[in-house]
Amino acid sequence: MQLRNPGARPTPPLLASVHVGSGGPFSFYLRNQARTSHEVGIAFRDVTLPEGTGTTELQRQVQALDKDPSVHAVLIQHPLPDGVDFRGAVDALSPEKDVDGVGTVNLGRIVAQKAVHAPAVALAVLQILRHYSIPIRNRRVAIIGRSSTVGLPLALLMAGRGASADATVTIAHSRTPRLSESLVGNDIIVSCAGVPGLLDRTVVPKGAIVVDVGLSSVPDDSTPSGSRATGDANATSLDGWAEAVTPVPGGVGPVTVAQLMLNVVAAWKLQAGGLP
Amino acid sequence: MQLRNPGARPTPPLLASVHVGSGGPFSFYLRNQARTSHEVGIAFRDVTLPEGTGTTELQRQVQALDKDPSVHAVLIQHPLPDGVDFRGAVDALSPEKDVDGVGTVNLGRIVAQKAVHAPAVALAVLQILRHYSIPIRNRRVAIIGRSSTVGLPLALLMAGRGASADATVTIAHSRTPRLSESLVGNDIIVSCAGVPGLLDRTVVPKGAIVVDVGLSSVPDDSTPSGSRATGDANATSLDGWAEAVTPVPGGVGPVTVAQLMLNVVAAWKLQAGGLP
Repeated sequence: MQLRNPGARPTPPLLASVHVGSGGPFSFYLRNQARTSHEVGIAFRDVTLPEGTGTTELQRQVQALDKDPSVHAVLIQHPLPDGVDFRGAVDALSPEKDVDGVGTVNLGRIVAQKAVHAPAVALAVLQILRHYSIPIRNRRVAIIGRSSTVGLPLALLMAGRGASADATVTIAHSRTPRLSESLVGNDIIVSCAGVPGLLDRTVVPKGAIVVDVGLSSVPDDSTPSGSRATGDANATSLDGWAEAVTPVPGGVGPVTVAQLMLNVVAAWKLQAGGLP
Repeated sequence: MQLRNPGARPTPPLLASVHVGSGGPFSFYLRNQARTSHEVGIAFRDVTLPEGTGTTELQRQVQALDKDPSVHAVLIQHPLPDGVDFRGAVDALSPEKDVDGVGTVNLGRIVAQKAVHAPAVALAVLQILRHYSIPIRNRRVAIIGRSSTVGLPLALLMAGRGASADATVTIAHSRTPRLSESLVGNDIIVSCAGVPGLLDRTVVPKGAIVVDVGLSSVPDDSTPSGSRATGDANATSLDGWAEAVTPVPGGVGPVTVAQLMLNVVAAWKLQAGGLP
């Protein structure tokens, strides 16, 4: 391999994580991003914008990161505060730096079966299934949730062509009248609803595999904070019923952080013109 | 209403329809575009590129149309000949002129629930259902076909939010092992497979509504050309079984042409800055 400038050491990948205010529901994810970046040798820049930052100022900050050649990957933590336009902000990024693949061009590339970046959480679901040798090809997968940043991109990836795709995919959501009926016959259920306890044995087909992408905070007096994180699955009800259920916390979440690191390296490679 | 230049008459909408070679499967559609444009007062430009035109030359021609302010809407007939890159060509268009909504940005906008242009054939399916007062909200719809220009955009539109959407959508395709099982419980079946006879009463749930987007040519000695157009539905088998079946020819096809005209007017309005 020949480096174009053999004397220079390549700049390490840099991930900028942008958020408005502190202490939002993303704080936990943000801390894990910082820690994992450090562990794997990715430079991490925490870009905290003050409470009350509006769309225009957010776009200005994002554009500055976009122009900065030392920044390879930009993540905009969402949900943003009410009235701040996430899409307007993420589309201020060039697609190559939109490391979570949620900008309009990257979403369009997923539809076109030419994905470059895709949402880390969607790829994390695929990674977990692959890790446990659970094929999706020729199988039926139901996705509960139709957000443009999680449910829909995952549906498109799973229904697409290729050995790691080729699933028959059902998109269910809050307007699905009888959820259990729409899940009948599905081998894999991916829940991105954010509704604690949504999935129990009255809803999940017997023997199905459940990947729980839900993340909610519920009151819990036994914890110091008075609350705890929970997913969409009722683990007690599904025990002995589902073939497998990913836990929350400790399931899709940490794999999403690991996947994000892979996305950052991919973004860095794109921008370094193919340096390893 | 105030025109910015009240002395000038607005330029009429102009649709340019680009195709490589003549006599392809798009010829019939092309003739209908020309005739319907004339009927509704849209200027129509048939841009026939010679057989053997490659991606680069096609992109050059598309870019010239994109720069031409008298052209408001550009349609690239597909499938293109083998080796010619449809996506490369359509992405040479600015999203505002991509009247069929198949460019990467317009596809991404559909995922983001902020559609500007969407494929005329997908919108035609929605128009037909609306015309016959067939709601999709809270109902189950199966779409057979996962192309980035028809099946996937339609799935995204139907599964999206809003009174004319909100369906629970299943995406089935050529890798769906037992199609009939995946269709069980669906109220509406939209078939975009291009497989004559695929849908009969062994596959379609009793009482379902079938929208047939398939279009194939089958041998028929009784016609002057020796062939005839047919859809995916076996109308004889479905008679007395399905609640309704759209015919081919004479179903989705002509509505698609009418919808394309609406899309052209929308593109023209976008570019005329809101002139009526």
